[in-house]
This record gives sequence, structure tokens and C-alpha cells, in this order.
Amino acid sequence: MWTYDAFPAAAVKASHGFEPSREWLDHVRLSSVRLAGGCSASFVSPDGLVMTNHHCIRSCVEDLSSPKRDYLATGFYAKAPGDELRCPKVEANQLVEMTDVTARLQGATQGLGGSAFNTALKAEMSKIESECATGPELRCDVVTLFNGGKYHLYKYRRFQDVRLAFAPEFSMAAFGGDPDNFNFPRFGFDAAFIRVWGTNGQPLKTDHFLSWAREGAREGDLVFVSGHPGGTERQSTVAELEFQRDVALPYTLLHLSEMRGMLREYASASPERWRTTRAKLRSVENGLKALRGRHQALAEPSLLGDKRKAEADLRAKVEADPKLKATTSGAWDAIARALDAYRPLLAEYKLKEGGDGFPSELFGLARQLVRAADELPKANAERLREYTDGQLPALRQGLLRDAPITPELEVVTLTFGFNRLRETLGADDPFVQEVLGREAPEELARALVKGTKLFDVKERQRLLEGGRAAVEASKDPMLLLARRVDARAREVRKRYEDSVESVLKKNGELLARARLAAYGTTGYPDATFTLRLSYGVVKGWAENGRTVAPLTTFAGAYARHTGKEPFRLPDSWLEAQGKVSGETPLDMATTHDIIGGNSGSPMVDREGRVVGLIFDGNLPSLGGRYAYVPETNRAVAVHGEGLLRALEHVYGANRLVKELRANQR
Amino acid sequence: MWTYDAFPAAAVKASHGFEPSREWLDHVRLSSVRLAGGCSASFVSPDGLVMTNHHCIRSCVEDLSSPKRDYLATGFYAKAPGDELRCPKVEANQLVEMTDVTARLQGATQGLGGSAFNTALKAEMSKIESECATGPELRCDVVTLFNGGKYHLYKYRRFQDVRLAFAPEFSMAAFGGDPDNFNFPRFGFDAAFIRVWGTNGQPLKTDHFLSWAREGAREGDLVFVSGHPGGTERQSTVAELEFQRDVALPYTLLHLSEMRGMLREYASASPERWRTTRAKLRSVENGLKALRGRHQALAEPSLLGDKRKAEADLRAKVEADPKLKATTSGAWDAIARALDAYRPLLAEYKLKEGGDGFPSELFGLARQLVRAADELPKANAERLREYTDGQLPALRQGLLRDAPITPELEVVTLTFGFNRLRETLGADDPFVQEVLGREAPEELARALVKGTKLFDVKERQRLLEGGRAAVEASKDPMLLLARRVDARAREVRKRYEDSVESVLKKNGELLARARLAAYGTTGYPDATFTLRLSYGVVKGWAENGRTVAPLTTFAGAYARHTGKEPFRLPDSWLEAQGKVSGETPLDMATTHDIIGGNSGSPMVDREGRVVGLIFDGNLPSLGGRYAYVPETNRAVAVHGEGLLRALEHVYGANRLVKELRANQR
Repeated sequence: MWTYDAFPAAAVKASHGFEPSREWLDHVRLSSVRLAGGCSASFVSPDGLVMTNHHCIRSCVEDLSSPKRDYLATGFYAKAPGDELRCPKVEANQLVEMTDVTARLQGATQGLGGSAFNTALKAEMSKIESECATGPELRCDVVTLFNGGKYHLYKYRRFQDVRLAFAPEFSMAAFGGDPDNFNFPRFGFDAAFIRVWGTNGQPLKTDHFLSWAREGAREGDLVFVSGHPGGTERQSTVAELEFQRDVALPYTLLHLSEMRGMLREYASASPERWRTTRAKLRSVENGLKALRGRHQALAEPSLLGDKRKAEADLRAKVEADPKLKATTSGAWDAIARALDAYRPLLAEYKLKEGGDGFPSELFGLARQLVRAADELPKANAERLREYTDGQLPALRQGLLRDAPITPELEVVTLTFGFNRLRETLGADDPFVQEVLGREAPEELARALVKGTKLFDVKERQRLLEGGRAAVEASKDPMLLLARRVDARAREVRKRYEDSVESVLKKNGELLARARLAAYGTTGYPDATFTLRLSYGVVKGWAENGRTVAPLTTFAGAYARHTGKEPFRLPDSWLEAQGKVSGETPLDMATTHDIIGGNSGSPMVDREGRVVGLIFDGNLPSLGGRYAYVPETNRAVAVHGEGLLRALEHVYGANRLVKELRANQR
Repeated sequence: MWTYDAFPAAAVKASHGFEPSREWLDHVRLSSVRLAGGCSASFVSPDGLVMTNHHCIRSCVEDLSSPKRDYLATGFYAKAPGDELRCPKVEANQLVEMTDVTARLQGATQGLGGSAFNTALKAEMSKIESECATGPELRCDVVTLFNGGKYHLYKYRRFQDVRLAFAPEFSMAAFGGDPDNFNFPRFGFDAAFIRVWGTNGQPLKTDHFLSWAREGAREGDLVFVSGHPGGTERQSTVAELEFQRDVALPYTLLHLSEMRGMLREYASASPERWRTTRAKLRSVENGLKALRGRHQALAEPSLLGDKRKAEADLRAKVEADPKLKATTSGAWDAIARALDAYRPLLAEYKLKEGGDGFPSELFGLARQLVRAADELPKANAERLREYTDGQLPALRQGLLRDAPITPELEVVTLTFGFNRLRETLGADDPFVQEVLGREAPEELARALVKGTKLFDVKERQRLLEGGRAAVEASKDPMLLLARRVDARAREVRKRYEDSVESVLKKNGELLARARLAAYGTTGYPDATFTLRLSYGVVKGWAENGRTVAPLTTFAGAYARHTGKEPFRLPDSWLEAQGKVSGETPLDMATTHDIIGGNSGSPMVDREGRVVGLIFDGNLPSLGGRYAYVPETNRAVAVHGEGLLRALEHVYGANRLVKELRANQR
């Protein structure tokens, strides 16, 4: 997970005999794309064609579907450029510049602690971002690297007109469903193509894009992954990891697993419910499995044992250095105390402010409208972070997206949230009373969903543009609920930020600087959903005494087909059986250190040519949140050769195949 | 949780000025009743009338209900003795004798380890129990006390004709539902009356029963609880507690919370579904909340901190004593190693053998029939423990009960189990393949439930009595499934028993003996679902800076009524408003050290008169599994005064009121 400015090219040369040049790095970086929703992607043609995972644009496919045209079930292919359909919620970013702003931020927070530290840090971040983002076509983020050891300003080109060009059937993208998720051997075809359109109403012309490799990758090949790993916690203290294991993860796991049970049963009642729920269900199941993997990694004594040793080593170095000792020796205890404060607060924070009490799209929109009305009149630096100038284009896009919202699903998820609120905080809790009054959760949810007009984009636009006056005049019940609970939600957020977040950040930063002082920048910073380059090889692993081979084939997919979901190949594949040689590679495992957010990352060879498309990791990779274990941690990708062949012979996506082959080399 | 033979009467005298006599103890003991399903109760009249909780006989009320007469919704009251309805699954036991058999068991396992230890222990237990249980009217259990420091033989009179006399509405028994469960102030009326009938077809005549107190208990009063606490783990090693925190509890919590989400959504679809699911749902929710409380107690650093200190102290004492050192100093490591072996085995064991993979009544019956056919021809000592002679009456009762089984609920729970199997063990696992073949979970579940004849008691009787020949000849699909998976299920059970259970038992026993040698029997043994007597006082507690008073009133219940479930008082209570003074106590909190299994325990005063009925504990009491914290741990009971008044003025249960008042003193 190396940042592009510190890629260890010489080390790669030493171990693999290949040194990527500065041009090579710049070209791959500028060909890389970030999807603002939390995924990676890449330009693969000079006409703005972008490759990513199906699961990265699944909500777009769903938004474009209706009971009559169910693209999630049938897949989608635009035969002509004009057939490409705009994704309501997708924003693509291209990283064009990185600047070190560490000195400015550390200067701004010098000598501060507690909430003052946090306030100063956020204000300076907002200021730097505002200065940088000179127009809506730019997005600027101050990125915290090495837990605050360094701060970089990342400048992106922002593209909001993104259109769907090709998506396979959901059942093929997620072939094997939840049982096969995070497993290998794997036979998913989790690929999709979208296209960035320019403001001129034409496909974007881009100088930087990845060409397709003529030959596919084979076992042992050196390959690179360029993408946006979302988050790791490899520098966390032992107390932080124990808190995750004992408090934070159990809380979220229970929330998700109950949600899963509810959604599965809800979705099973009719085909229409299944259609409108499956994507949400899949993402809940994916989150659940991923977090369970993390919890299991932390529950394994060896991982925490290693962390304890590393912490003792750093502590000894800090104690041995008078200057470090003076600044940093109290950092571990300060973190532990902040976590003690967080322990009784976590559920309250997650339920009132984090969304667990209101898992509803409509409520989310209502809260955004209420807060936008409160925040936007304030000076930029004083706003809640998600309402600062740099965030406004994304906020507008989210509020004004023209995507369907399913009333019935809203009712059940909102009921679920209200029940969680009441049972966790207690029926007598003032916040719960404020939400429910004497209503039953389901009746209230039903009345809110029935009464709200927030389904309507125009109404949302009216409220957004009308500002505080419009919001205060509205009698919309969902908006009224969001207003009613806002003071208490903000209060718990402030308590969390002042007594937990700021302490963890400030002391995490002290430890990060101590670590840099003691060991230098020998490794890469924790993942932060910013662009990184990883190198590795195509390789299997050993598990319970058996060897897992790194490549699966088309023949394997047909052998796994039982005819029953989630092991049912779609008709397109059944009809195409024999058109692609059974020996053609379909998926592959590699040694790259990746994590959630890397989904959709291109995998390239020494020539910078596409040889694969990352879409998953194996079960041991889930512990990668805390530590990378080279023996077993594997990334999982669609093989580039299989991808192109399926596109051609299974889907007959000839326009795209031609576009890709035009630059094949 | 004192055993009756070691009750510290002198200590009670010293602290409370009252010393229960031997006669007092014998009388209360013989008035106490155990319900084999996992609850406590008491005789409260000379005619076999038994008081317990509604939730202890909820499954009986459900079994007796149908779409046309829904006793769970309406409550039940038998106006005449002949109207009392037999509970298909309830067995009541009365403890008549206790004998110390420690020497016999420790002699039988002398010098043995691993599976030999386990086998010898089980064989000797079965032998002792067979010798004792000279007829079907007796039940004999060897009880492991002090983790194997002592073994006692408990002899019970067994009553299988138990009839329902009175049950309130479920909504009143569980008033406040899941939100109020384990909370206080509380307003539940979780009481019920059943009656033991003799084999002569008449109500049982009993010399020992508790009379009702004329005056109710008040704050500060000394009171006693006689009941059957189900299980505590207060002597567990730190490694065992960490295993619970990190592995065992998270596994079960996730299982239950997904099940809960599924069942709630399933039940919400129609009144009939709600009727047939609510009791199961309630028990899943209760288990979930209880285990979450346990997990939170273990996640609290102070609890494990205290345990670490206690363990270090015992270790030091063991190391200091050459004899103890020789036998016991390796015990902690042996336990830790067994848990390492259990870690990768736990889910497999729970799914294949423990029932999580087959959460279905029909499958349970099928497995029992298959195993009975295999086990019963063997010598008693060689059988699986639940098929030994002592267990046969309960086995027969379970298999031949005439209770309804809901096909639709069977399909969803079985589907749930099959999905859990596949996702946890993997689609390629041989056991999963053996269960599912190429079928989808739901289709298979549907076919099994549709095809089986095990709904029919006569068919089950035929198979039970026909033995192996009948079982092997059967083409019943559920029976075939149970047969198909039995070898692998037994295999994982054997692996668990040999490599985990027996090591934990043997070394737990060593530690227990070391503890007795080091500290004597200063405390009471861990709870084992055997009769215990607890003393304490009526008392509130302080929580987040506010004081919780120990008594709630009828007026409080009416104030809590919102008209919406689960805060809707039933019509009977609404109509009776004003008939009972609002100041009358309804529920109360006391300091007793109780735990699950104590539900239904009578609470008696110094005169041995009923002053309350235990039905719950507060949230802090959930950590009582591992440690009793006097400041906050509280038991929750229905107040005796409120109980009798509601029976009379809300329910007009005059026959029972007369029966109770006849012996009021």
C-alpha cells in the first residue's frame, strides 16, 4: 500500500528485477480512478471508458432498474454510446496532485489538546481544502498519513457524469453468493464498465489510460495493483485493538447480523421484494463477513501477542529518549482513558448520530437537509466537516440524485432502527421518548414514510435551496423528526469528538511521530482511501494441509453450477458454454496487500498493461485490517484474459471489446 | 446459591438475626419443585398446586393453543379441577435425597486422562444413577459440584402429569417486552399456576407446600429464594473466560441475533405467524440479551482483572505446596491447550452436533429416534449420556408429546440452519455436501417438512418401539437426513469430548480440589441446575447517579401503558383499573444471587411463607455468570401481595385464590 511519492522502486528491482520508472508510475497513477462511494477503478481507453467491479456500481444498476427492466438480474450492455445510462450517485475522481502540508497542520495544532486540538485541526484542514478547490471540477482532501505523522493535500479532478456501459448479471458477478464470498477457489465475474462523460456532453478524452495485455498473468508473475485501500489500523495501540475486539466489533456485528436475518426473511416474501432488497442485503452480508473476519483475527492470540511485543519495543525506545519521553510517554494511557470514556458511549453515538438508529435513506436525506440549513450559513471552518465547501458537490449530488427509494423497505429498516434505539437505550431514555413518544416503532415508521415528500427530488431541491426558512416552514414528518432529534444527536457527537476522537487523534499522532523518529518511514502508512500502489505475485497458499492453486478456470465455473442460487450460472453463460476454452483462467489469487476500497483496482504487469481486476480477498486477508500475513493473505481478482473473453463470447459486448482491443499490446 | 446441606445458617443469624432450623430448611426444600425444562417452582397447596413463572410454562400454553383458542393471547384459567389441561412437555421434580458420591467417582477416574477419564466418569455416573432410579417415578442425577471437587447424587420424585391451572396473558406476563426485559423498574406479571396430578388421576396430595404470607415484603426485609440456578462459571480460569469472550459468546450471539432478525420479520407477516412464533422469538430474544450481558461483563476490564489476581493467588499457593504442585501446576496450561484445540472446532461442533445447523423440532425428533435405535441396544454405561436408563422417561416424554409443530416455522428455521451450515463450513465441506447435495437450503427444507411423517405421535411411537429395524426400514426423508449425517455428527462430538471436554473437566477438577485445599469450602459451588437456597434483602441500587427503588406498583403499570405493544396492558387489567389500590406492590428487586434456572423460584420470609416469585434479574445480574457484584446485581420478582390481588381482582381466579388463602398465615 505504498503512496506513489514513496514507492520503493529500488526494492522491487532488488527482489523482482524490475524497476518502475517515474513515467511508469505517473502513467499508472493518472490512469487510476477513485469512485467516491468507496471503490477503485481505472481508465482503459482514450474515450473515458472505466473498468471497475460490478459490486462497485451495483447501486447504480439497481437505481436504473424497475420492476419491468431489472438490470441487476439481466445485466446491462449499451450497444451504442448513446445507450449508456447515467448513474445517479456515482462520482469519479482522478488524482492529479499531492502536496505535503504537514507543517501547516502541525503548526495549527501546536500545544493544543482535547476539543481545541480537534477544532483547530478541522478548521485548518477545511481552510487548506477551500484554497485548493477553486471550482466544482476539483476536489481537494487533506489526507492524514501515518496516523498524523504526515498530512498531504490530495487534489482530484472530479467527474459527476458517469454512465453505465456494461454490467453482467448480479448472479454472475456474485456467483457463489455469500457462501463463496471471501473464499477461494472462486468463480465470480465481478466486472463492469462505466464511462466518464465530459461537461461538453461527449465521452471524456483522456491521455492516460491502461492498455490491455495480450498475454494473461501466470503463476509467479510480478504484478501491480493501483487503487484506494479504504482503511487499516496497523498502528493501533493494544488498547485500541482490544477495544475493537471487545466493544466496537461485537456491537456492529450484532447490529449487522440481526439486520441480515431481517432482510433475508423480508426479501424472501416476493420477487419484487427480492429485487429491491438484494443489493442492500449483499452489502450487509459482505460487511458482516468482513467484520467477522476482523474479529476472528483479533481473537487469535498470536496477533495481539505480536502487537504487544511491538508496543513494548516502541515504549522502550520512547522511554530511552528524554525528548520523546517528555512528549509521548503518556500517549498510551491517554488513549486507554479515552477508550474507557468511549465504552459507555459507543452504542449511543452509533445509534443517535452514526445512523444505526435511523437506517433509512429518507431519514438520511432529512437529516442532511436539516443540517445543511443550519451549517451552510456558518463560516466554512466552523461547519461540521461534511458540510464544508469541499464537500458541497458530493452533498448536492447525494441530495438531488434521481434514484428510486422503496417505501416498504424504508418502513422495515426504519422500524428496525427504532427498535434498536429503544432496546439499547431503554424505553425511558429521553432521546427514545423524543423519537417514539407513545408510538410503536412500526406504526411510526409507516406514518413517517407515508407522510414524507422527500421521495421527490424537486421537494428536496426546494428545501435545499430554500435553506433554513424553507426547512423550518416544512411540516414534512420525516424532516420534523430529523429536526426534533438533532440537538441530542449533535450533543453526543460533540461528546464523542471532544472526549474520544480528539484524544485518539492527538495521541495517535504523537505515537506516529515517535514511530517515525524511532524507525523512520520503513513501511507504508495505514490505508486512508487514497491512491496506493502494491506489488506482489500471482500465488496460491496452503490451508489446513491442502494447497489452494492461484488460478481458476471457465471449466471450474461450469462444474460449480448446481442450477440453484447462489450457484446458478446465468443463461448467458449456459448458452455460451464451449465458446471459451475451459482452460481459460477466470479468477486468480495474488499476494497483494489490499483491503476494502481496493475493489475495482486494476492489476497491471511490468508494461503497465491490464492483466486483472481486483474484486475481493480471501478469508485470511480480513485480518489484514491489523496485520498483513504473507503466508496466507491473498487478494482475489478477475483474470484479464477471462474478462475480455467473456465480454466477447458470453456477452457479445463487441463495441467495448473493440475499444479495448484497439489498444491491446 | 448454597446447597441445602451446607447452608450457612449461623452466618445468616450473625448478619440478620435469624437462623433457619433444620426443619425449616427441609420444609422449604421439599416444597421446592424443579421443572425439567430448566425452571424452578414450588408447591403452594396441599393439593399439588404449583407456582411458577408464565415464561416457564409458556411452551405448554402455546402447545394447548390453536388458531381458535389462543391462550397465550387470552390467558387461561381452569374454573374447575377438571378444566385443568395437561402440559405435553412439562415434567416436575421434587428433590427427596442427596448423597455424597465423590469417593466413588474419583476412585473410578483415578490416574486416567483424556478420553479414558471422560469415559470412566460417564460410565460410573450412569451406573450410580441406574442403581438409584429403581422405577420411572424416580429420577437420579449425579451432580458435579465445585467443578468436580465434589459429586453428589440427587434423587428426585418425578411427576409427568402436570396440568395448567392459570396463566395470565402473554402480553401481561412479558409486559414491556424485550425493551424492559432485564430492566427495572419493571411491571411484568410473570406468574402461572400448574398442578401436579398423581398416577391415580387425582391432584397430588403433598405434605410439604408453602403457605402464603398475610403481609408482603418491604424494603430491607430478609427473604430467601429456593430454586435451581442453571449455571455459573465463577471458577473458570482466565483462559476459559477469554475463550468465552472472544470465541464462544461471539459465535452464539451472532447466531441468535440473526435468528432474531429472521423470526421477527417472519412473525410480523400475519397474526397466525405471530401466534406460532412469539414464544420462540421471546426465548431467542431473552437468550440474546442474557448472553450480551455476559459478554459485556467479560469485556469490562475490571472483571477479568479480578480473576487474574485470584488466579495468580491460587497459582502461588499451588506452587508453594509440593504435593499440589506435582498434581496441579500443569492444569492451567492443559486447559489453555484444550481451548486452543476447541477454537477451530467450536462452530463445527455447534452446527453438526449442537443443533445450530438443524434448528428444527422435526429434525430433533428424527435424530433422537435414530440415536435411540442405535443406543438403546447397548449396555447402559456405553450409551451416549442422554440415552442412559435414567434419561429414558424424559426421552419418551419428549418423543411422544402431543404438541403441535408448525410446518411453516419448521421450514424457515431449517432453512436458516442449512444456510448457517453452508456459509460457516463452506459449500465444499463434505458434511454440507451430505446435507444439501445440489439442493438449495430452502427447497430442501420445504421438501423435508412436506415429506416427513414425524408430525404424527403414532408414527414416532412406532419408530421408537420398532427400534433399529423400524428406523432402518423407514423412508421418511427427515429420518434419512438424520441417519445420513449421524456418523459425522458423532465424530465431531467424540473429537470435542476427547480433546476438549475431558481435558477441561479433569483439569477443572484438579483446580477445584486445589481451591478446596487452599481455601476450604468458603463459598458455594457453581450453579448446576440443582436446588440452592439464597438469602438476601429487598433493596434497590444506584445506576448512573440515579437511585432505583426496589418496589414498583400497580399504578406504575397503568402509567407505563401506552396502548402499543409491548407496552399495552391487556383488557383484563384495563377493565380492573381501580379494583386494586394503585399503591399495591407489583414487582420488586432483591439482592439475591440467582441466575437463569431460578425463574419461578419462590421467595419466602423468615416464616417460610411466600412473599414473592422470582422471574428475572437486572442487566448487571447478567455478569453474575462470572461474578456476583453486591452493589448492582439484583434479582427481580413478582411481589406476593400484588400476585394474590391480581389473581383475585383482575382475573377472578377465585378457586385458586380460595386454595391459596386457605393456608395463608
